[in-house]
Parts: sequence; C-alpha cells; structure tokens
Amino acid sequence: MNRAKVTLVGAGPGDPELISVKGVKALSKADVVLYDALVHPDLLDYAPSHSTRVFVGKRAGKHSYNQTQINQLIVDYALWEGHVVRLKGGDPFVFARGKEELEYAEAFGIETAVVLGISSINLPGHYGIPLTRRGVNESFWVVTATTQNGALSKDVAVAAQSDATVVLLMGLRKLPEITSIFRKQGKADLPIAVISKGSLKDGRVVFGRIENIVEQVTQAGIETPALIVAGEAVGTHDRFYEHATELKANFLK
Amino acid sequence: MNRAKVTLVGAGPGDPELISVKGVKALSKADVVLYDALVHPDLLDYAPSHSTRVFVGKRAGKHSYNQTQINQLIVDYALWEGHVVRLKGGDPFVFARGKEELEYAEAFGIETAVVLGISSINLPGHYGIPLTRRGVNESFWVVTATTQNGALSKDVAVAAQSDATVVLLMGLRKLPEITSIFRKQGKADLPIAVISKGSLKDGRVVFGRIENIVEQVTQAGIETPALIVAGEAVGTHDRFYEHATELKANFLK
Repeated sequence: MNRAKVTLVGAGPGDPELISVKGVKALSKADVVLYDALVHPDLLDYAPSHSTRVFVGKRAGKHSYNQTQINQLIVDYALWEGHVVRLKGGDPFVFARGKEELEYAEAFGIETAVVLGISSINLPGHYGIPLTRRGVNESFWVVTATTQNGALSKDVAVAAQSDATVVLLMGLRKLPEITSIFRKQGKADLPIAVISKGSLKDGRVVFGRIENIVEQVTQAGIETPALIVAGEAVGTHDRFYEHATELKANFLK
Repeated sequence: MNRAKVTLVGAGPGDPELISVKGVKALSKADVVLYDALVHPDLLDYAPSHSTRVFVGKRAGKHSYNQTQINQLIVDYALWEGHVVRLKGGDPFVFARGKEELEYAEAFGIETAVVLGISSINLPGHYGIPLTRRGVNESFWVVTATTQNGALSKDVAVAAQSDATVVLLMGLRKLPEITSIFRKQGKADLPIAVISKGSLKDGRVVFGRIENIVEQVTQAGIETPALIVAGEAVGTHDRFYEHATELKANFLK
C-alpha cells in the first residue's frame, strides 16, 4: 500500500486521449480512483487492475453523493487504501470544487497534488472557433450560468454589456433567459455557438445568432453537457455563414 | 511521405508531461515539427528521429519569423514533406493565432486538425489558486494585457470594475499600469498573484495585494512568462495570509 495521498487529475473535455501524460502516470499509480459522470470510462483502464474504482458522479436515476460525502470518501480511501486519484471532467480547478476537496484532505494531513486538465472552456478551439481574434476583441469572460442556488449568475448581464467573448458553462436550459439578456443590450445579431458533448465522438456545434439560437438548438436536439460561446469572434468561423450549421467533432486520424 | 496535413497541437503550460496523449500521438506521426519558444524541448523527442524540427519562436537575440512567414512555412513544409505538427505553448486557440494558421493552410486545400492543450490560464490551479470559489465569485475574465500595437488592452479597465477574477496574460511589464487601474476602482486591497514560468520546475507564484504586488514581484525577481490573477478568490488560498509567499511548482513524485 502506498502512503495516503490525493492527486486531483483533470480528465479533459470528453475525448479520452485529451488527458495529459502526467494524468495517465498518476492513474497508473492509483490505489483508488474516484471519478465523475463526465469522465470517459476508457480512462479507468490506465489504473492498475487491482485498484478500487468508485463512481461519485451525479447522473439521473443513479445513486449519487453530495460534496460533503465526496470530500469524506476521498479522505477515507486515502487513509485506508493509499493513493487516491480524484478524476474530474475538464480541469479540476475550473468551476469544479477541486480546491474544496484538496483543502479537506489537507486538513487531515494528507499529501496532495494537482494534475491540470484541458478545460471545457477550450472546446471552441476543437471546432475551430476562436475565443479572441486580432482586431475583433481582446478578451473572453467565463461564467457559470447556473449558480449554487440554481439561478442564473448575475455576471451574465454584466458580461453581455462587454466586448468580451462570453463563455457560459451549464447554461443550456437557461438559453432563453440568456438570449433575452443579450437582446436587451441590442445584441440580437451577435454570433453564438452551442457545443454539445465536448470532444466526444458524438460532439457537435450549432451556430446561430442571439435571435435564433434557441430555435436552432431545439431543432438540432442539442443535449447536455453543452458550452455556450457568444461574441463577434464566433462569427469569424469559416462555416458561420451557414446559419445553424452542425459541425461534427473532428478527430485526428 | 504522408499526405499534406497540418495538426495544430497545444504543448501545455511548461511541464512537458502536461501535453495530452493525443498530442504525443500526433507528434509520433510528424514529418515536420514547427515549434515555439515556450515549448519544452523534451517534447521534440516524441517526433520520429527522421523528422524535421524547425524553431519558429521569438526569443531575444535569435532569428525569428513573423506570423506571415510562419503561415507560409507551415504550408510549404506540408506540401513538401507531408504531416506538419505545429506545436504551440499552452492551448493553440487561447491568444495564440492558431485560427489564423489553420485558415491559411486550409486556403491551400491542406487537411487540418486540432489537438487542444492545457492553457496557461489554468496555471493558478497548479498552485492551488481557485479562479472561482462558491460564495465568493461566479466568473473569471481573461484578457491579453498587451495588444497587437503593444498598448494595454482597454478591457483591463472594464474587467477591474467587475466581480470577475481577472486573469491577465503578457502583463508583467505593465503591472504598474494595471495596478493603477485597480486602485482607481478602490481595489488597493484586492488579492493578486503573479505566476512565473508556468508549471516548469523553476515555476513559482508570488502573492500580494494590488497596493504592494509591484514591490513583491520586484523583490522576488519574477521573470516572464508570467500570468497575473487578481480577485477575491485568490485570497482564499491557504498560503495567502503570508504576504508575498513564494510557492514553488508542486510536482507529482
């Protein structure tokens, strides 16, 4: 048994090959893997065959743990079994409570380490959509659309006033509310894209403008998880002129 | 010889093990690698021994190419030698002109692909610094401090007014100007961190507040590349109470 240790590992945005080499190395030395719903199952194959694998994600109709329970599970497994790899979708520090989990473990004197992951906020690039473009804009603003209490973040209204490309996580179900906020800023024409299922094989993107994206997304039957990107830079995509084009995830052959 | 193809690969933020598995795979199939100054030299070992490696980065005292020349080199090598891997520090789509390079190649009918990388904007997590924290803030705003013409982006002033954690790339030399903007917003007390050299072995972070960070950074002799993070979430770091603590990059043993 290894000594008690917790390594927080980012699994990346869907495609299992987007995990880092360091993440694979951490998994290969795991005694226990605690993983989320958005983690690709193939990644578990990197862990030793004798290792314990525990699903702690939230998925409809399945048993799930709350954050307090997950924190405690991490500590218990580390103390009982040794090296715990906490495998999280995307990057463990981007809207992912990685910090809370680390602090809880550290309070028990457990050694911790972090292996960054590719965040879902980088997904636009996977589809060739730039977040910034020279001469168009100079920044992007990342907001979690759904806050702790389930309401839309107040930052969405401020971001809609800015020149930044606005990147929204967990916003698909709030898309009508979000587009209404942009309309109030006179931005009905603003290019917007909705990326579904990240870099998975059935991942895709739907383009539109604020005024028609809700309809486009409905017609296309877009499902969660989804990332929303709104801004003039989105309109510079070479497929943008075809409204509501669906672009499939492009994979390295 | 492979057919003409360009794969844009993100090398990640310093530590060579933070490249993705997919990035390694692309490199192993490269006929040519065109790489930047911030790419770790160990990554070139993943390319076949017969492959051509071309340094196209900007580094003081060394010959460098401008963007137009780089675009043309990518196309020329693809047409002459086959599969070009364009290896860029961080993520190829976050302030990195990856889109421009892809479009140029596509205009010549060359097949393209993208392999995302961990962006330098994720580096705060490497040092345990959260960009957002429940109950503290709900968003972060990423701005390139130095724009095309060398001036400070106008978005910095708007971002300084917001509740978002502000993440600034390429801002070290403009730190006095940046802190002056935050002071004007009455934010002299705002926690701020400067991360130097990313996730490399000599990477480190200096903490401070808007009012004293310039002094702290000067005393610590912080060098570029550096990432600046300002916001209340930074102050929740467990080492923050020790002003100007230097934290070394923590590596997986």
